Amino acid sequence: MDKINLYEHRVSYYETDQMGIVHHSNYIRWFEDARIDFLEQAGFSYKKMEDTGVMIVVLGASCEYKISARFGDRVIVIPKISEFNGFKMKITYRVINKENGSLLATGETLHCFTDLNLKPVRTKKDHPEIYKLFYDYIDVDLDKI
Amino acid sequence: MDKINLYEHRVSYYETDQMGIVHHSNYIRWFEDARIDFLEQAGFSYKKMEDTGVMIVVLGASCEYKISARFGDRVIVIPKISEFNGFKMKITYRVINKENGSLLATGETLHCFTDLNLKPVRTKKDHPEIYKLFYDYIDVDLDKI
Amino acid sequence: MDKINLYEHRVSYYETDQMGIVHHSNYIRWFEDARIDFLEQAGFSYKKMEDTGVMIVVLGASCEYKISARFGDRVIVIPKISEFNGFKMKITYRVINKENGSLLATGETLHCFTDLNLKPVRTKKDHPEIYKLFYDYIDVDLDKI
Amino acid sequence: MDKINLYEHRVSYYETDQMGIVHHSNYIRWFEDARIDFLEQAGFSYKKMEDTGVMIVVLGASCEYKISARFGDRVIVIPKISEFNGFKMKITYRVINKENGSLLATGETLHCFTDLNLKPVRTKKDHPEIYKLFYDYIDVDLDKI
Repeated sequence: MDKINLYEHRVSYYETDQMGIVHHSNYIRWFEDARIDFLEQAGFSYKKMEDTGVMIVVLGASCEYKISARFGDRVIVIPKISEFNGFKMKITYRVINKENGSLLATGETLHCFTDLNLKPVRTKKDHPEIYKLFYDYIDVDLDKI
Repeated sequence: MDKINLYEHRVSYYETDQMGIVHHSNYIRWFEDARIDFLEQAGFSYKKMEDTGVMIVVLGASCEYKISARFGDRVIVIPKISEFNGFKMKITYRVINKENGSLLATGETLHCFTDLNLKPVRTKKDHPEIYKLFYDYIDVDLDKI
Repeated sequence: MDKINLYEHRVSYYETDQMGIVHHSNYIRWFEDARIDFLEQAGFSYKKMEDTGVMIVVLGASCEYKISARFGDRVIVIPKISEFNGFKMKITYRVINKENGSLLATGETLHCFTDLNLKPVRTKKDHPEIYKLFYDYIDVDLDKI
Repeated sequence: MDKINLYEHRVSYYETDQMGIVHHSNYIRWFEDARIDFLEQAGFSYKKMEDTGVMIVVLGASCEYKISARFGDRVIVIPKISEFNGFKMKITYRVINKENGSLLATGETLHCFTDLNLKPVRTKKDHPEIYKLFYDYIDVDLDKI
């Protein structure tokens, strides 16, 4: 399994709100950024998605906020495929302050696989190479490989 | 209990993504808009918050997506205080397509009450008038009063 | 010429930044919201756009900030077609604080008309009904009709 | 004069709209990201700003769109101080597609310097070290040093 470079983000000014912290909706966006970055490195780039006609749809998203990120902070967002059965997938996330290692937030997103018409796809049967790709990363902590 | 006008939002073009639907992060923002609108009508405006020094902090947020909202849609977001004990509060949400009544998404946010230094506040003891205000709305369906 | 209802927006919490004011990028978004709202009322809805295959592309946008809008403010955004020759259009905007009438910002956007393949369209020849629609609103102050 | 690392951004999925391109408001946000990154490297970090009590306020912003950035693109945003007299400053920007070098957009922002109460500050007299810092970068093309 190839090493995955962890997704790093520097907090933008426009991501703050008048409480002086990052607005809570942005963590959901960071999850997406980190997920896309991970999947691309793992071999499932957006181009691959288009070529195979398999889409990953968001069914749910959640975040628990522990310590507020602030303007200028460098944060690391680490996704992990915690559940995957070929047509549904749960990814969990940890948001870490890069400088001091503290855990800022955790979260998860739930997904299903569909074709371009949003019809469910069972990757195990229909796209075994995609199935294998995700299967291999189940429960893998990207910061420990 | 006064009638609360339901929060209505028209989907902006900039809220869509290249899948042609509303980006999923925006629902978390609509929850906030609807929550603020509701609390203001219920008597807990932002000004009141500043005057009393009591803040409502977001501890968690989640959303389940059922049908995608699209550009131009008019959506109704209905918050409900589903749990409240004086220092923590859970609010649930339904996002409804105004035109056809279909349920687009559900979600919830978890909050605690703090003072301006983010120290937890027990509203029952320290701010009984605020406590009563929230208490009265526990489990109230705003679209049925 | 029909009366156009002016576009009104209540400032969301997530639109603020840590300076305690609306982040300046949001005014560009409000311009779009107001433009779409105006054009729909004038008879050029998004559906009409799809039916005729004529798109309005953004070539440029600018904003001058005078007084900062703040969380909870009700703002009115008034677009005006200040230039239009059938294939290009300049729209100017005024952002007004609804409560006290003060001018918060001005701005403009520059557009061209294209078909769905982004090829320029000359509405005067190819879509005279669209041409007339925009032509009639040149230099019309929507808050004075 | 030290070499400044150019600001690079990878286009997020949530920055696209249903036209399949980056929503035009995001370029204004990228300008800010690039400006902050540049000023920090030049010696005027946000911390320095807080320590000296000098703020840079946005008076205006504009963007001209040439080629649309798309999801996944790596873009370089290059700011240049094109005018500076100690209390006002104009910064221009070029947005470049990193892969093929094409110019996607240009823009500018206009700023003034204030103290924490938003009172104008003349840096030449009141903060000569800040004055010098900006003065040295007038008309410097960051991609050519």
